Amino acid sequence: MVAQREQGGVILAGAGPGDPDLLTVAVLREMSRADVILHDTLVSPEVLALAGPQARLIETGKTGFGPSMKQENISEMIVFFAQRGYRVLRLKSGDPGLFGRLGEELDALDAAGIAWRVLPGITAASAAAASLGQSLTERGRNRELRLITGHDAQGLAEQDWAALARPGAVAAIYMGKRAARFVQGRLMMHGASPATPACVVENASRADQAIRAATLATLPQIAAEAKGPAVILLGLAPRDARIALKEAAL
Amino acid sequence: MVAQREQGGVILAGAGPGDPDLLTVAVLREMSRADVILHDTLVSPEVLALAGPQARLIETGKTGFGPSMKQENISEMIVFFAQRGYRVLRLKSGDPGLFGRLGEELDALDAAGIAWRVLPGITAASAAAASLGQSLTERGRNRELRLITGHDAQGLAEQDWAALARPGAVAAIYMGKRAARFVQGRLMMHGASPATPACVVENASRADQAIRAATLATLPQIAAEAKGPAVILLGLAPRDARIALKEAAL
Repeated sequence: MVAQREQGGVILAGAGPGDPDLLTVAVLREMSRADVILHDTLVSPEVLALAGPQARLIETGKTGFGPSMKQENISEMIVFFAQRGYRVLRLKSGDPGLFGRLGEELDALDAAGIAWRVLPGITAASAAAASLGQSLTERGRNRELRLITGHDAQGLAEQDWAALARPGAVAAIYMGKRAARFVQGRLMMHGASPATPACVVENASRADQAIRAATLATLPQIAAEAKGPAVILLGLAPRDARIALKEAAL
Repeated sequence: MVAQREQGGVILAGAGPGDPDLLTVAVLREMSRADVILHDTLVSPEVLALAGPQARLIETGKTGFGPSMKQENISEMIVFFAQRGYRVLRLKSGDPGLFGRLGEELDALDAAGIAWRVLPGITAASAAAASLGQSLTERGRNRELRLITGHDAQGLAEQDWAALARPGAVAAIYMGKRAARFVQGRLMMHGASPATPACVVENASRADQAIRAATLATLPQIAAEAKGPAVILLGLAPRDARIALKEAAL
């Protein structure tokens, strides 16, 4: 690690969905400068490979489910390194403002009087829709996009199901794999058609991305096929079967 | 312009909210490669300055309101250049999948049998929230984010007002300046407190960014102060008054 400086600062940044080409210029620059990079498990190895040679990488181990470092301990580590004068980069997958528990880390930094800055990132819904060749909003179909989470601190997340069940509604469900059956049940209870289109996009933007078309009727089975992190796009189907060929041709 | 090639292709990409540091690596690369860049009016001069020397820049003039090229003509131009073998970059502000009329342009490309690829961008809501030091979602407050538009093809856009009026609801309203009074009226009619926090973020991420804190009661007056493009964040207040100092210190 480089020599300590008097004043440390913390950048809290979004690493995007995994493809290093989807990093922003600002985050790429901070990766090359940082002394310490505290990153979520979901930040891809291809992104981490862009860290500067001086950087110490620390995985905080947070995932949607499963064992992980307590949020409190992550915040303490961020403060610990910043107080010792290191340039700290807190790297979260996607956009830090979406389901990223950013507020708790900023609270800890404010309490310690440490300077910080937030840099946005490409969120999985944007990357997944781009891969599908679909707009998340479209005139005549939906004038609203909902970003929701499949589970939260209280377990499976309740939503405004009646609105989501309407024809044409579009929503991106983060961490939705295990909630797929629950979501299916709630939407059908509120009158959604079993034929409502949906997509499960696994490892959005990564080399191993998999797009699985589904309907509300097949969503739980299709979602169960995804092994990696997945975002469910309710109300959207892949544009057409020729997309993959077209992308390869470019 | 460079010599024509046999096979043209079109990249439809998001330029983000304006700060060139918020371009993705992929879009920056495409800007340096493109022969023709067709861009929305809202794409910032700082971003356009990153185009390669060979690039012909064409402003399509689309804005939220006011005079603009017809969508049909924009699509025709994209097809025109691609068919003549040029490498075409269609550059939209923000994320192309959000309120960007992407579908109509992809339809035109499909009809002409032209290869395309969509690259996502940072959307204004992410950049605005990062500047506020706020999460768009937060445990115990909101497990859902709504991205809505202040107006659509039919005029001022109707929404699920009852849900938006609930305490803790967070929504980003794009192109919401002129709709602020309409939104205020609808939300109050559905029981929202006049003290509900809101922010108007003008020119998000740009050098001339202005963050204006408001409440639902003051939203129309505060929104009217914004001269440039603005996103309204309903349900969010700036984190605290020290943010600007802190950012400047980093």
